Amino acid sequence: MKNFLGLRGMGRSEIERLVTAAAEIRDAIDRGDELEQSLAGRCVANMFFEPSTRTRLSFDLAIQRLGGHVLTFFPETSSSLKGESLHDTAVTVAAIGAEVLVVRHKEEGVPEKVGEWTGLPVINAGDGSNEHPTQALLDLVTLKRRFGSLSGLRVGIVGDIAHSRVAGSLVHAMSPLDVDLVLIGPGEWLPNESAVAHTDDLDAIIPNLDVVYLLRVQTERGGVIDDEYITRFGMNARRAAALGEEAVVMHPGPVNRGVELTDDVVDSPRSLISEQVRNGVPTRMAVLRSLVVGGR
Amino acid sequence: MKNFLGLRGMGRSEIERLVTAAAEIRDAIDRGDELEQSLAGRCVANMFFEPSTRTRLSFDLAIQRLGGHVLTFFPETSSSLKGESLHDTAVTVAAIGAEVLVVRHKEEGVPEKVGEWTGLPVINAGDGSNEHPTQALLDLVTLKRRFGSLSGLRVGIVGDIAHSRVAGSLVHAMSPLDVDLVLIGPGEWLPNESAVAHTDDLDAIIPNLDVVYLLRVQTERGGVIDDEYITRFGMNARRAAALGEEAVVMHPGPVNRGVELTDDVVDSPRSLISEQVRNGVPTRMAVLRSLVVGGR
Amino acid sequence: MKNFLGLRGMGRSEIERLVTAAAEIRDAIDRGDELEQSLAGRCVANMFFEPSTRTRLSFDLAIQRLGGHVLTFFPETSSSLKGESLHDTAVTVAAIGAEVLVVRHKEEGVPEKVGEWTGLPVINAGDGSNEHPTQALLDLVTLKRRFGSLSGLRVGIVGDIAHSRVAGSLVHAMSPLDVDLVLIGPGEWLPNESAVAHTDDLDAIIPNLDVVYLLRVQTERGGVIDDEYITRFGMNARRAAALGEEAVVMHPGPVNRGVELTDDVVDSPRSLISEQVRNGVPTRMAVLRSLVVGGR
Repeated sequence: MKNFLGLRGMGRSEIERLVTAAAEIRDAIDRGDELEQSLAGRCVANMFFEPSTRTRLSFDLAIQRLGGHVLTFFPETSSSLKGESLHDTAVTVAAIGAEVLVVRHKEEGVPEKVGEWTGLPVINAGDGSNEHPTQALLDLVTLKRRFGSLSGLRVGIVGDIAHSRVAGSLVHAMSPLDVDLVLIGPGEWLPNESAVAHTDDLDAIIPNLDVVYLLRVQTERGGVIDDEYITRFGMNARRAAALGEEAVVMHPGPVNRGVELTDDVVDSPRSLISEQVRNGVPTRMAVLRSLVVGGR
Repeated sequence: MKNFLGLRGMGRSEIERLVTAAAEIRDAIDRGDELEQSLAGRCVANMFFEPSTRTRLSFDLAIQRLGGHVLTFFPETSSSLKGESLHDTAVTVAAIGAEVLVVRHKEEGVPEKVGEWTGLPVINAGDGSNEHPTQALLDLVTLKRRFGSLSGLRVGIVGDIAHSRVAGSLVHAMSPLDVDLVLIGPGEWLPNESAVAHTDDLDAIIPNLDVVYLLRVQTERGGVIDDEYITRFGMNARRAAALGEEAVVMHPGPVNRGVELTDDVVDSPRSLISEQVRNGVPTRMAVLRSLVVGGR
Repeated sequence: MKNFLGLRGMGRSEIERLVTAAAEIRDAIDRGDELEQSLAGRCVANMFFEPSTRTRLSFDLAIQRLGGHVLTFFPETSSSLKGESLHDTAVTVAAIGAEVLVVRHKEEGVPEKVGEWTGLPVINAGDGSNEHPTQALLDLVTLKRRFGSLSGLRVGIVGDIAHSRVAGSLVHAMSPLDVDLVLIGPGEWLPNESAVAHTDDLDAIIPNLDVVYLLRVQTERGGVIDDEYITRFGMNARRAAALGEEAVVMHPGPVNRGVELTDDVVDSPRSLISEQVRNGVPTRMAVLRSLVVGGR
């Protein structure tokens, strides 16, 4: 694997290989095994041009656990203050010695451009409304660990699909895996070209779902929280009761409590939210290892 | 030891065990010994919700010297910008893989709550006006190294006792150790329920003290520097001359020079201020090791 | 070597020793060799009181590659908010356990003062308009790798020489090395006491140069970009065509594209800009090693 820019176009076998590798690393961490030092002596730069806790820290620990050196680039203390272009910043970080770049940016396509400019493997840690592929991959790992197989799972993604990079990656990941996917939200929130089933009636479809995946209302990026959203698409105790016994709820975090989910649902046994976070480091380790040592 | 939230209620033997362990690590560092890698492969998160130089860097180096992975959480570049609650941030950092959390917060009790929420060992790096137990512990290490024994030492703590978390921890630490403690300041600066001796006349008591511990006027937290404070409670050459030959002065830093102490006193041989800082890393190493490998 | 504060007064043999050591480390990195862990168990503090990408990250990776612990001091999240003086901050970082300090500050002479206050080896990472010696050293490494020998090279430094710490260090480095140096800019941009040849006519001298070193217009420090500057001193395709076949262009970065150099020159085979960055880490490794293990 040369880059990890998105799940669009990635084949079933490659996705499954990464999911399996991540699940194995998760088990090794849980057992307290010594972890293979695949990045020993290698340098990875964390380039987050948007604020982040979980994703940045998750990559930071993933790199350390693989024995690598971490370079953390904070735009606000850096030469971006001197007006250096994104191109020159990326090329500079590469020339300093980074061998893999992890890039988050508010504009779609920046991680791909960074890869072209530098010739280095790039991991997309979220670009605009496009993709956030390590998030989707860790979600698959979480589902695999819960349900054994992804094939035939009935998954509903709820919220502003069109503007969500998490949804973007999930849709691309799930179609080759024979997931039975439905997008839930008002028509104006659906991507224009989507061939995926969709509905605006959460209550009608909820009994048929194995997985309800609530997207975050991204208030920091223009998303608006209003009562109608909560009424029509919020996950609460009443809706949770309509789910099948084995059904789960997921959210990429951070949750707006009382908006996408009520507290009781967040903290219920149905919630895989904490498991999703827990699978972040092993998933990123699997992706990093795959970029550095090649497919296996 | 499950947590290190404060020195209130900690027994003499436990305090002495930690002081001894820290002093041994200090000696090992001074000799250039290889240090036991008690945190090898383990991850500790530094969660400072208030600005800090010495405490944050001191924990950072302590973790590295024990072979651990450090996750540094900077609130200003993180999801706190997205409105995530403290609870969810803490639970997330735990789920990412931190095994010990170091927490500083302006509100009293936050480190304890973080421990309850996450189930992880927590080290209190300062909470509101409550406790700052690693500071008090390193002060004990400093005194132990200077005087051999703490028992019977006559220690005066000078300043706004009621609002000082350093004083809070010192008072709790010193009573089980048979330190002869007196609090020095106007009555309104004393804690309401204090059973400790106190006075507002520094000059009268100074010849009887082995240790004068000046608290910082915390201008960043509402403390006011005025001439009357300096006149009544500032440590200067005249007062230093009234001390016994072996007596020392201490301060948790950063010093407001010319306020709590004049320059000549800060830089005099009586001053243990630099020694206090020097004992910070070994003290934090001892606490971290104790949380991870259990009592020894 | 006790400190690395500047190249003023450093002898030819010492400069050549460092250049050779850096070039060897660069080769070792390119070959993927395991690198000598000269800083194993040692702690270096990165104290940048001015924003920086390339220099800070370059030191960060240099320290990690030598096996050291890095302490990163960010003024904006630190006790500088509490009004602590520079002296006390430096002494504190030393007492915490740093064994080498890397210091950048907007005021000339601060790194030297930090060395006096702490007694520790200090590396000047840029002080005011004075020196930026690791930049000049990596420039020498870059020239050595390109031309084999520095002796007799005809080097023109273009720009605001008087206010450039990079130029300051380059001038001091090049005179003992028998470089044939000329400073290019209007008279008011030359240092008063300079004994070095100078001219304000770039076009007249350009065919005689092996190296054109363009200084950055430091807009973040009061430098003004105007059309006259670009017309008289900007490096463009026409001027590049007037250079000899083997001649090169250099710039310490970040480049103001279209100001000091046009895009086509930055990205041409004549440009050593990326090589300069690439030599940053090995050069800093050589300096760090020299401070810690002594001359060799």
